[in-house]
Amino acid sequence: MLEELREHVLAANLALPRHGLVKLTSGNASGIDRERGVVAIKPSGVQYETLTASDLVIVDLDGKVVAGERRPSTDTPSHLALYRAFEGIGGIVHTHSTWATAWAQAQREIPLLGTTHADLSPHPIPLTRPLTQEEIDGDYERATGDVLVEAIAERDPLEVPCALVRAHAPFCWAADPAAAVEVAVTLEEVARTALLTTVLDPDVPPLAQALRDKHHRRKHGPRAYYGQR
Amino acid sequence: MLEELREHVLAANLALPRHGLVKLTSGNASGIDRERGVVAIKPSGVQYETLTASDLVIVDLDGKVVAGERRPSTDTPSHLALYRAFEGIGGIVHTHSTWATAWAQAQREIPLLGTTHADLSPHPIPLTRPLTQEEIDGDYERATGDVLVEAIAERDPLEVPCALVRAHAPFCWAADPAAAVEVAVTLEEVARTALLTTVLDPDVPPLAQALRDKHHRRKHGPRAYYGQR
Amino acid sequence: MLEELREHVLAANLALPRHGLVKLTSGNASGIDRERGVVAIKPSGVQYETLTASDLVIVDLDGKVVAGERRPSTDTPSHLALYRAFEGIGGIVHTHSTWATAWAQAQREIPLLGTTHADLSPHPIPLTRPLTQEEIDGDYERATGDVLVEAIAERDPLEVPCALVRAHAPFCWAADPAAAVEVAVTLEEVARTALLTTVLDPDVPPLAQALRDKHHRRKHGPRAYYGQR
Amino acid sequence: MLEELREHVLAANLALPRHGLVKLTSGNASGIDRERGVVAIKPSGVQYETLTASDLVIVDLDGKVVAGERRPSTDTPSHLALYRAFEGIGGIVHTHSTWATAWAQAQREIPLLGTTHADLSPHPIPLTRPLTQEEIDGDYERATGDVLVEAIAERDPLEVPCALVRAHAPFCWAADPAAAVEVAVTLEEVARTALLTTVLDPDVPPLAQALRDKHHRRKHGPRAYYGQR
Repeated sequence: MLEELREHVLAANLALPRHGLVKLTSGNASGIDRERGVVAIKPSGVQYETLTASDLVIVDLDGKVVAGERRPSTDTPSHLALYRAFEGIGGIVHTHSTWATAWAQAQREIPLLGTTHADLSPHPIPLTRPLTQEEIDGDYERATGDVLVEAIAERDPLEVPCALVRAHAPFCWAADPAAAVEVAVTLEEVARTALLTTVLDPDVPPLAQALRDKHHRRKHGPRAYYGQR
Repeated sequence: MLEELREHVLAANLALPRHGLVKLTSGNASGIDRERGVVAIKPSGVQYETLTASDLVIVDLDGKVVAGERRPSTDTPSHLALYRAFEGIGGIVHTHSTWATAWAQAQREIPLLGTTHADLSPHPIPLTRPLTQEEIDGDYERATGDVLVEAIAERDPLEVPCALVRAHAPFCWAADPAAAVEVAVTLEEVARTALLTTVLDPDVPPLAQALRDKHHRRKHGPRAYYGQR
Repeated sequence: MLEELREHVLAANLALPRHGLVKLTSGNASGIDRERGVVAIKPSGVQYETLTASDLVIVDLDGKVVAGERRPSTDTPSHLALYRAFEGIGGIVHTHSTWATAWAQAQREIPLLGTTHADLSPHPIPLTRPLTQEEIDGDYERATGDVLVEAIAERDPLEVPCALVRAHAPFCWAADPAAAVEVAVTLEEVARTALLTTVLDPDVPPLAQALRDKHHRRKHGPRAYYGQR
Repeated sequence: MLEELREHVLAANLALPRHGLVKLTSGNASGIDRERGVVAIKPSGVQYETLTASDLVIVDLDGKVVAGERRPSTDTPSHLALYRAFEGIGGIVHTHSTWATAWAQAQREIPLLGTTHADLSPHPIPLTRPLTQEEIDGDYERATGDVLVEAIAERDPLEVPCALVRAHAPFCWAADPAAAVEVAVTLEEVARTALLTTVLDPDVPPLAQALRDKHHRRKHGPRAYYGQR
């Protein structure tokens, strides 16, 4: 019964090296079956080249393994915190993609500098607050998920579909795993273009509010006219 | 009867991911049949991998769909404004290619720093003026085309075969769709080399006028001696 | 009897161009059979495309060729110095990978700026001291190995699994040749992300000590919980 | 009789896109048969994908076409000036490779910052002087070759196997066309690493003289011990 979930999550994981977003075993994608309350996620430290649907680990929302022979990704508690907090999301992707990670390491949110970014989100890409010593020593990966939720604050997580964990790397989410991969691809391009823009002009102004709204509304919401719907 | 136009425009669209100029569904190429007064263009939000000639949408110069099952690219009114203004062009390519987009986001024209650029155009790559609030709220995509036309001013659009939409990305054009792809490839390389040059020396002088003229004349105009003509 | 060693070292060498870490004939990987006291290493100046297991050269720990028709890599004495000093290592990779080499040429250690780095090592990537005129004129390649050993000082070489030779390039090591390749891949990514981070903020602070320890312990040591062990 | 020359020059041209050194039809490789006094070179403006040995043009040292149906590269007079001046060279490669071209456009020689560079040449990569108005208006491509020769001055062209034409791009040469391709590959990597080094430290000192000499002598000259000779 979980075959479809496994197939979608496998496809999302295999897309990460194909898009150049991961090296070796880093990164992971997951998906949730909201009816059954279970999440499929990449096993920890496994190569993408040999990953199969049956390698994926099925956990419940408390992190208990309910199917699969392997240990789930060490980042599983971060994924679960996001699934618990954001009921509208169905897939999550975590990578250490180069350019987004550079912004995370520089401990800067990604400013909204152009329409490519506005197509993804009408907001800067947020940066999480520093973890406390207690959070690092305690349930570290869960705390990582919690500060991501904090960074989105009261906003719609589908309008801010990604954030940077400070000094770490991005997490991305969407309605399903395939869409979360698309967020990760677009975020990396947005991060890259923003960094190169900053090289050309460190003080470049953010995109005008009218253009932010316009581009986001072209793709999202009731008056969207992008795509084939 | 439009099969040839469709094939040329399909080939131009498929060349964009092959040259690394687009991610996911972003970007689009079009071509015009001047005799029939119709334009073939990529449908909105469709993956390149599965795009076929019959997916392309045929519109007239006012934007009315005259053939095709799908919705045309949201950027169609920008293409049409360019085709109406520039009678000598036969193909248009729009991408968010990384390095050209960085210049657009930095809101700087691309200075003419070397012979690679001079082979493409004897002028800096122009940047459009900011759109007004009214233009953004009104027929936004048409206004985008109009400011591109404005940026070329009285010059020959085949001598200035591309421009940057401010805080957005480049548009490129040429005598036919395949040639517009070549402009897009060259522009991205020119943008990349110019940015790296700027890193080495932010105050580097532009190319000497004599070299601008020489390189452009080698490839273009009555005394051209580049190529096999 | 040395077939297995040769196969592992061949695989490590062939992985270098596949990961984009080497150009033309530059770079080399080696592995040691501690029981027999012999090292297999790439022959000098040979193309990767045509490299076979029988091309590899077998040398003892003093550098004497004990099997193989070809001349060993000119960097062999550097490898041997590392094998002699670090008894826990089983494989070494030397490349001139672009971003790590940029740090080596800038004569700067790579600061620890994020968790990607902390997953590799809880320390900055060290830089060797300048060689003296006597060292350069004498047994240069051995001296290169000796200053690498010096740069690790009293630390566990598996906790500092790589270092930059000043104005030259990185050396990487691990328990076996395949793991040394993984260090080389990760180091290059760490070097690249650190350089881009530095572009965004030249004065970015290093990763908090608590996060350094946490991330390293997730992957290494008795309480590691990353992977499938 | 010229089949072997044609095959070597074809192989060198086809290597350029494979190594990512050229876009579209830019760039060209040539080779000389010193006995017959003829040069084989890429035809002007022809795509690499469809290039065949019979497309190559054979010219004498004065530029007269002696075989071939097509027009030779517009850069032919630059190649011929180099062949006439440097009797020891057998192949030439001209590209607009990105990172070397950035240095050319910044009008800076490439400083010798590390051993990768020293393996290629014990000297900075020279930059040609500006062409005069007369040189540009006259036999421009020949003048380009002449200033390259000037930039090498009294040095051995095999010790300074490449130079940057100011505001234009690099030319590379070697004993044969395949070796000239290797120079072009290495130069691009040297240019890239040097630019990234400069980003990390604009005032980084050049490589110590002892290391320059050491690395160059490892690969070149009577006491070379790199490779299988």
